Parts: sequence; structure tokens; C-alpha cells
Amino acid sequence: MSLKRKKVSVIGGGFTGATTAFLLAQKELGDVVLVDIPQMENPTKGKALDMLEASPIQGFDANITGTSSYEDTADSDIVIITAGIARKPGMSRDDLVQTNQKVMKAVTKEIVKYSPECYIIVLTNPVDAMSYTVFKESGFPKNRVIGQSGVLDTARFRTFVAQELNLSVKDVTGFVLGGHGDDMVPLVRYSYAGGIPLETLIPQERLDAIVERTRKGGGEIVNLLGNGSAYYAPAASLVEMAEAILKDQRRVLPSIAYLEGEYGFAGIYLGVPTILGAGGIEKVIELDLTEDEKAALAKSAESVRNVMNVLA
Amino acid sequence: MSLKRKKVSVIGGGFTGATTAFLLAQKELGDVVLVDIPQMENPTKGKALDMLEASPIQGFDANITGTSSYEDTADSDIVIITAGIARKPGMSRDDLVQTNQKVMKAVTKEIVKYSPECYIIVLTNPVDAMSYTVFKESGFPKNRVIGQSGVLDTARFRTFVAQELNLSVKDVTGFVLGGHGDDMVPLVRYSYAGGIPLETLIPQERLDAIVERTRKGGGEIVNLLGNGSAYYAPAASLVEMAEAILKDQRRVLPSIAYLEGEYGFAGIYLGVPTILGAGGIEKVIELDLTEDEKAALAKSAESVRNVMNVLA
Amino acid sequence: MSLKRKKVSVIGGGFTGATTAFLLAQKELGDVVLVDIPQMENPTKGKALDMLEASPIQGFDANITGTSSYEDTADSDIVIITAGIARKPGMSRDDLVQTNQKVMKAVTKEIVKYSPECYIIVLTNPVDAMSYTVFKESGFPKNRVIGQSGVLDTARFRTFVAQELNLSVKDVTGFVLGGHGDDMVPLVRYSYAGGIPLETLIPQERLDAIVERTRKGGGEIVNLLGNGSAYYAPAASLVEMAEAILKDQRRVLPSIAYLEGEYGFAGIYLGVPTILGAGGIEKVIELDLTEDEKAALAKSAESVRNVMNVLA
Amino acid sequence: MSLKRKKVSVIGGGFTGATTAFLLAQKELGDVVLVDIPQMENPTKGKALDMLEASPIQGFDANITGTSSYEDTADSDIVIITAGIARKPGMSRDDLVQTNQKVMKAVTKEIVKYSPECYIIVLTNPVDAMSYTVFKESGFPKNRVIGQSGVLDTARFRTFVAQELNLSVKDVTGFVLGGHGDDMVPLVRYSYAGGIPLETLIPQERLDAIVERTRKGGGEIVNLLGNGSAYYAPAASLVEMAEAILKDQRRVLPSIAYLEGEYGFAGIYLGVPTILGAGGIEKVIELDLTEDEKAALAKSAESVRNVMNVLA
Repeated sequence: MSLKRKKVSVIGGGFTGATTAFLLAQKELGDVVLVDIPQMENPTKGKALDMLEASPIQGFDANITGTSSYEDTADSDIVIITAGIARKPGMSRDDLVQTNQKVMKAVTKEIVKYSPECYIIVLTNPVDAMSYTVFKESGFPKNRVIGQSGVLDTARFRTFVAQELNLSVKDVTGFVLGGHGDDMVPLVRYSYAGGIPLETLIPQERLDAIVERTRKGGGEIVNLLGNGSAYYAPAASLVEMAEAILKDQRRVLPSIAYLEGEYGFAGIYLGVPTILGAGGIEKVIELDLTEDEKAALAKSAESVRNVMNVLA
Repeated sequence: MSLKRKKVSVIGGGFTGATTAFLLAQKELGDVVLVDIPQMENPTKGKALDMLEASPIQGFDANITGTSSYEDTADSDIVIITAGIARKPGMSRDDLVQTNQKVMKAVTKEIVKYSPECYIIVLTNPVDAMSYTVFKESGFPKNRVIGQSGVLDTARFRTFVAQELNLSVKDVTGFVLGGHGDDMVPLVRYSYAGGIPLETLIPQERLDAIVERTRKGGGEIVNLLGNGSAYYAPAASLVEMAEAILKDQRRVLPSIAYLEGEYGFAGIYLGVPTILGAGGIEKVIELDLTEDEKAALAKSAESVRNVMNVLA
Repeated sequence: MSLKRKKVSVIGGGFTGATTAFLLAQKELGDVVLVDIPQMENPTKGKALDMLEASPIQGFDANITGTSSYEDTADSDIVIITAGIARKPGMSRDDLVQTNQKVMKAVTKEIVKYSPECYIIVLTNPVDAMSYTVFKESGFPKNRVIGQSGVLDTARFRTFVAQELNLSVKDVTGFVLGGHGDDMVPLVRYSYAGGIPLETLIPQERLDAIVERTRKGGGEIVNLLGNGSAYYAPAASLVEMAEAILKDQRRVLPSIAYLEGEYGFAGIYLGVPTILGAGGIEKVIELDLTEDEKAALAKSAESVRNVMNVLA
Repeated sequence: MSLKRKKVSVIGGGFTGATTAFLLAQKELGDVVLVDIPQMENPTKGKALDMLEASPIQGFDANITGTSSYEDTADSDIVIITAGIARKPGMSRDDLVQTNQKVMKAVTKEIVKYSPECYIIVLTNPVDAMSYTVFKESGFPKNRVIGQSGVLDTARFRTFVAQELNLSVKDVTGFVLGGHGDDMVPLVRYSYAGGIPLETLIPQERLDAIVERTRKGGGEIVNLLGNGSAYYAPAASLVEMAEAILKDQRRVLPSIAYLEGEYGFAGIYLGVPTILGAGGIEKVIELDLTEDEKAALAKSAESVRNVMNVLA
């Protein structure tokens, strides 16, 4: 029996990675290691130190380390991957996929070397294909490689609904299947305010607009920022998944999970409702879908496969 | 009697301002308005929206608004000023002071117009002179215009001591007087670990090094980041001061306060221990100082006066 | 504009009242006054002092006062009534009703005298009739007199479902209408785990057992304790309702609300979904009910009326 | 590597034990097992269930089990002992000591049997002698058997000082050595408000009165309650110590620790400043004492030895 602190490493010291590190430390979920490439070692150390200097004020005990050395990640309980590039103007999707695939492979090799028993949560886009890449490269069982997308998508959906109805975000829930963004399959019939189906509270055309806004939620932030993409809500999403695992909470959260027959798909990572606990993805929850939903999910899976075909 | 939510506005939507907004919202201290100049309106809206989309996950209810219009700050309980420029290579100190003075004047006019009853907390550097500028421009009583510097300085000091002794940051305290940075007057004899004076726990030369590192704490982060300055710990500092006021906690925190005779100084803003509660700075606590401390404080005050002489 | 702390008074210093006071203070929702009869003044002071002595450790700032004088409740934002007797062996229901009615009248007179603008939350049983009594005696508008029952009933339901499915309580929701206990009208079709309707996750006979256990949830605790009744979950329920109002959260929570035509009933207090915010009950949410549900609600209302007929 | 939840068992299901269980669960420090004697099994189950039913509302995930079987405590990380009798009118101190010694022996045997690697925190009075009894009976190394007294004593002291100065409890610290109650050795010179020595803030006669009130702090609550003793602040104290160990915080907290030469004493349990982390008592901090303090500590140690002489 060991009472030593849990440890979470975050790969990628950009805004999302740094914010993730801060939110993990704030919750005293364990010590945190923020890793970036050697050229970014100093800025990463600077961010980590700045966060640490907030700890006496915010009242949390957690070591936060900035580093470019994977040795510092040794024996992590969870490793979160935020590394990778964002699509730039003029870059083809295939270039994006292949570049990030290389990043995933390199990063995964290091993660596995130093934390062979860890759980990996992947944020890097396109998240389905990148989760698959990490899964294959790591050789880890499928329960230990998990992609994030649905927690963020539902958070955006919930935010828009709470604004629409002028209600607490605490009482609004959402539900999505499938991929991220345009391939998202929202299950509005499983979305509620105070337990009341949204379809009875919000006119269909407004609901449609909210769904559409959710699909484009990442782009909305990108357009507003002008330079860069969202990081607060993505970081909060990653932390919620990590917390569910670290505290063995058996939360019901949407994950990008490796399917082996569930929902009729096999050999791909796809967004589905899961139970997250001490065993990582402890279960994929299967739901009866309507024909429309099945079709939408199939289309989403096809998109994922198209991206996977680009993988080297 | 009104149960409507408190409201805090943050002027300046850069990293410090944005992080301050997020930490305020996380604690459900009230609704938050993040203000920047018209050219930055969209990025400010983007950050605010991204934070809001984290709220269903982190479980807080707070409206977070990004704007360039001061009208949106109307009836704020507290306004926090993070706006202003940082000193750039080749820029003289006087240029910095005069530029930020202009910013303070413009910003204060708008704050006063829309929230004539608010409390103002100033972060912008040089914080002593900028607090003075806001005080004069606002016409507010001195208890309602407060500068931040000591909460951050002591947080850094506490972090370094906790690392030195390998102890919880929760049990380490620090104490500073005077100005920010090089003019800081650390009172190590009033600093403890678990109530035990640090002087009995840490060799003098190590203590000196920690004090020196604290003095240069802002620069250490600037040097590491390469581009930009600290924002996590500064934001946490601002939020602690705002919380003390909003919740009427009567915290004993170091503030940059307007002195009228305390410690032998009058007509300047200087870092001193204060009681922060519903009345803002409810009291300046006067301590007996040693001759050395008095001399250091006088030197710090002289630095402040030198900067004030640059004010237009 | 005033930044002074909110104030909540709790009438009745028994286990539920005391636990409510503690949970309010822990959340720094305001200063807390715990009131009991003069004979219990010292024990009430003792509990308040003991709680206060926990505050430096738990890290909350709140005055907690034990008293038998209603003067100390002056200008409360919210007053929570837990006072009254529990049914004892051999006591007829009518005796219980009439005794507690007297208590409510006496208590309400004092509340109104010292806090004419407050919101009142009633826990005392039978809660529908007691809320009605307080409403009439206070002369307050209906939005400011609220009974608690559904938050507790759904919490029990959620606990049993989370155990049944071995899932986080965070992801299980429940929904009830009508009165407390046997008159509770559970809307299982509006109850979910991770957004998935429970009816698809739990066999009907197990769901029926859970509903039945929820109905008898108060009695289960009474039987186990042997002496006394539940207080942790009731106190948490009261605090959640108070927090929604104090922080203007616009939570969707079940309340015992005064109906004027909603669901076809008028002139009685009945359990319905409501929006709780700075205005107390800001809205009663009306749902389409099935014929069975309508019948069950009518039966529940009839029970309430039968109790009301006993009122003096 | 295992991510399964931590586990804390609390022996003694009275008010202190139950409150301790609740506060542990609230903080999601692990699963909690509340143990009492077979005759109290049902009430203990009732309390545990009531707490569990508060969890969906308060938002924590923790199993809380009430039991009379020590099997349920198997593999606890920490076991907290609150069991034992309180001194009743007419009971001699020796009777109290010997009765509780028997309880400690019986309880410890069971704890060791099921959790041979756990840490034990003892609250039962007289806590010095009872900690010694548990230490001897368990055969555990000294770092794993810890008595509570100073966290509670300082919390009371801090509360009284915060009231005296009308300041936040967050900024007041206290420091005690020696035994509980009358044998307490307060080190007022190591006690501060906002880092400022209390001796410079409070007149000596008021300080003396506060020290005296702290010494009698347990009795003050007993007298007020009329029936029973304090449990909120004692429970909070136990939880703070447990949290320091479970999260490896290396807090500086006063503990009743087994001395082997520290402060000139050996072979007894005495209240001293310690570092609490993943290794339990990781260090006893030795301070230079004044002659008066040495004398007071010697007197306190003598009291402990007198009680130890009564041990069978």
C-alpha cells in the first residue's frame, strides 16, 4: 500500500496543456508534469513555476514541473496528450493528419517507456485517428487509451441551452455520439433541463440552431480569437475524464473509445457513452438508436475511416 | 435587500485579465465582465465564451461576458484593472509610466461613470504610481482604491520556502512591506513555517537567496517565458483580494494603500499590511519596525515618489 | 450597493437544523443564526460554538450564532424552518398537524417581525400543510415561501439507482412530483443515468423496488436509527435550495410550491418542478402528464387537502 | 500501480465518528467505513445511509458503510479511533483510563488484523495514554500511530483570537505543545494574526483569558451542551490530519507523537509539532524552548506519565 501522490503528465505545454495542468493541480489530483519540446523548455518551466506560485494563494499542494525530458514523467498514472499542430491556412487535411500522426508516435513511445502502466487521454485532432495511432503505437489494452471529444461537445451544448432557457448549467445535460465537430451526432432526445426533455422546452428550430452552433463550437472560438483556439473548456474536459479515472468515480461520460463490435463497428475509435473509472474505459454503453441516428453514426464512422486511411 | 449576483469587471483581456476572470467565475464570486479595447473585442469575447463553456464541467454558475463597451460594466461591485503596457526593450521607465498613466486615466473615467460605488483593485505597473493615478482620477475615498503587489510577492516567497523545506505551501507564510520588486521590503522575521520563524529553520544565506529570488520573481518568469510575463499567480492574487472584499472576510493581506501618516508617510501609495473586508481597506496595520526596516521602507517610498514625479 | 455578508437563520437547533447551519457555513453562503427555544439556548450555543471552532480547520469564514432570541435573526435573507415535533408512537396524525401548526404560526410571526423581506424554506412535516400555514401566517407572496421535499426524495432515489448500477451519483438524476413519502409521485420516465432513461437500464421490478424504497426512505432511516430521524440528507437538501436562491442560480429543483391553477390545482402547496433563483420560486414548470401520473398527483393533492382540513 | 480509491475506517459511530465520516466523504478522500459495536449496528448503518443520501446533492462520490464487523475495514489506508467512553459523574479518572484502555486494546487487535499496513489516528481520551496503548498493542512503528489534540486546541485558540480581533480565521494561527486541556502548553509567541505576533496585537490579560478559555475549550462545550461533548471541531481536526497523510501534503501540524529523546523525553506520547505526510509522522520538529516552556512541558509530560501508570 502506498500513499504517495498520484501523478499526471500533460504532453504539450501550449494553452490547453498548461490550463489542463493548472486545473489538475487546483483539484489536488496529484503532482503534474508539463512536457514540451526542448526548444520550449524554458517557457514550459516558466508556466509551471507561475502556476506553482499561485498554489499558496489558491491553497493547493501539488508539484508542477515544466520539462522537456520524458524521464520526468516516469510512473505517471495518467498521461494526457495535447501535443500536435493545428491546421493552418493552406494546409491539407492529409498533411495535418500525417504530421500529427508522427507526433503521436514519437510521444507515445516516450510515454510507454516511462509509464508502461498509465492511462492515456488524447485530445489532439483529428482525435479519433490520433487515439487510434496512440492505441496501436502503445500496445496498451483498449481501456487505457481514451480520446476526448464528447465531454467538450456536450459542455458547449449545455452552455448554449442554459443561455437559451436562462437556467443553471448545473441542471442542463447533453448527449452526443460519433466524431467531433461536423461529424458529431447529437442525441437531443437524451438531453434535458432539470430532467425535462429539451424537445418539450425549446422550439425545434432553436434546438436545431443550438445543435448547429455546437457542431461549429470549436470554429466559433477560433474565429473570435483570430489567433489560436479554445483551451479553457477543452482543458476542463480532460480534467473531468482524468478525475473520473483517478478517483474511480465510474462516471458516465462520452469518450472516443476503441470499438470491437459495439454499435456495429469494429477496429475504429468512435465517440460513445462510456463508464470511466479506475479501469479507464470500464464499459461502452450501447443504446438503441433510431434509424436516423444509426445513419448519422455510420456517416461519422465513415469520416473517421477516411481519416484513418491517410495514416501512414 | 437584494439577492442578485455580485458583479466584478476586469479591465484588460490579456492573460492576467482572462485568468482573473476565470478564477473569479470558478469561485462563483459573481458575474464577470472582461473588458478590452475595441480592436480586441472579438478575442475578448472568444475567451469569455471559452470560459463559459467550461462552466458546466467545472460546475459553476456565472455569466462571463467579453466586451469593449464599459456600459457592460455598469454597477460592478469591484473593478480590477490589469490594462496597460509592459515595459519593452528600449523603452524608458518614464515612457512606461506616462503611457500607463494615460491608460489609467481613461479607464478610471469609464469605471467611475458606470460604477460610482465600486471598489477598484489595480495591478498595472508601476503599481504604486498607477494606484495613485486611479485614486486621484476617480475621486473615490482611499479605502476603495487598492493596489496589488504584496499578495503576489508573499506567494512567491512562500513557494520558494515550501520548496526549500519540502513542506506544504498551506503552512508557510510570508510578509512584505514597501514596493514591488527591487523595492520590496521583506520582513523575514514575520515569516513562518507552521508558525516557526523561518530564521530558525533556514540558514541565513539560503534565506537571503530566497528573498533575492522573490524580489526578482517577476523577472524570473519573464526570462523563462521569453515572451510575456506571469499571469497565474498575479490573477490568483487579485482574486484573493476581491474575495476578501466581496465576502467581507476581514482578511489580513498586504495591499498597496494610500497613506496619510501611517509609517511616517503621507500622500503616497505604499505596500503595507491591511485588513480587507466589505469596506475595502478597512484598516492599515502599523507595526513597530527596526531601524533597518525603517530605512528600507523609506528607500522604497523614495522610489515610489521618484516614479510619481514622472506622472503628468 | 452593499457588500455585507448574506445572512441565513435556521429555526430549530436539532440535528437537522444544526447540520443545515454547518453546511451553510462551510459553503460561506453567509452568516448563520441557529435558533431554538429558551430551554435549549445553551445546547444551541454549544453547537454553534463547536461549529465555529471547526472553521479555522475547514477554512471558512462565517459567524455562527446559537440563540433563543429572534432578534438575532434580524434582516435574514433566508430563514429555514426545521422546528416542530416528530410523530411519536400513539400520537394521532391530527395531533401532530395541530401541534406543528401552532409551532409554525409562532415561529412565522417572529420571522416576519424581524426579516420582513426574507425567503422562507420549510422542512417541518407534514411539509405541504406546514408550508401553507407559514404562507398564510406570513402574508408573504407565494414565491417567498417554499417547502422542501423533492430534493431529498430525488437524492434518495439517485443514491439507490447509483448503487444499483454501480455508477457515480453525479450522473444519476431523479424526478418526483406530489407530496412527501407515500404520496410521492415519481416520474421515472424523467430519471436518467448519464442521460439514458433508467427504464432502459434497470428492469422494471428493480425500478419498482427502488421507487418503493424511496417512498419509504425516511422511515428506513428512522427504523435503523431507532431513535430519531434522518438529518444529513435533509440538511443538504435545504442548503441546496438556499444556495440556489442566495446565488441566483436559477436551478431547476423540485419544490413544495403554492399552486394557483398549475397542474389543475389551486390554493394548496404541492410538490412540482420549479426554478429557484434570486426571486425564490421564480417559476413553476408545468409538464404534460400521463393519465396515470395525473391520477397519482390528484391522489397526492387529496392527501394534502385532508391534512389541510385538520388545520385549525 | 493501482488507482482504486483510498479507504478510511472510523471506529466509533457516535457524533464525532459520524461527523468525521461525513467530512472525509465530502472531500472525496476515499471510501469510508463507520464501525460501532454490534448493538449499535443499525444506528450506524442508518447514519451511513443518511450521509450517502446527501452525496448526490453535495456532489461527492464515496461509499459510506455502517457496520459492526471489522472485516469491512479490511485494507484501510487510515483508521481513526473515536471509540471509548467519556468520563461520567462519579467515575474516577483511573476507571476511565482502564475502561478506555480495554477498548483500545480490543479495537487495535481488530484494526491490525485487517489493515496491517494502515496508519492509526487516535482521538479517545486521555489521548496521550490511549495513543501509547494503541502503539504498544499494534506493534506498529511510531510514525504510524498518531494522537490528535493540538489541531483541535489550536483551532479553538484561533477561533477566539479571530473573534477578539474581528479578523478572518484564515489569517490567525496558533501553536501548542504538551497534553490536552489543562496540560496544554500554549506557545503564544508562535501565534500570529496575518503574521503579526499576537502579543503585539492583544493585551496580555486578554491573551491570558483566551489561553485559559482554550484550555477549558472542551469543557465549555460540554457545559453548554449539557449532554455530550464537542464533535464538529474534533471531527474536522481528525480529517485534516488524515488528509495530510492521504495526500502526502507534508503539513506542519501538532500531533501526539511517540518521543524517543525529542525535547528530552522518551517512551511517552506527547504533543509536539510534526510533519504529516505519506509516511504518517515523518518528523518531530524540535524547537528551542524558554525555561518556562520547558517547565510547562515537563509538567505536561508528568501528567501523561501519571495516567500511563494507571494503564494495566
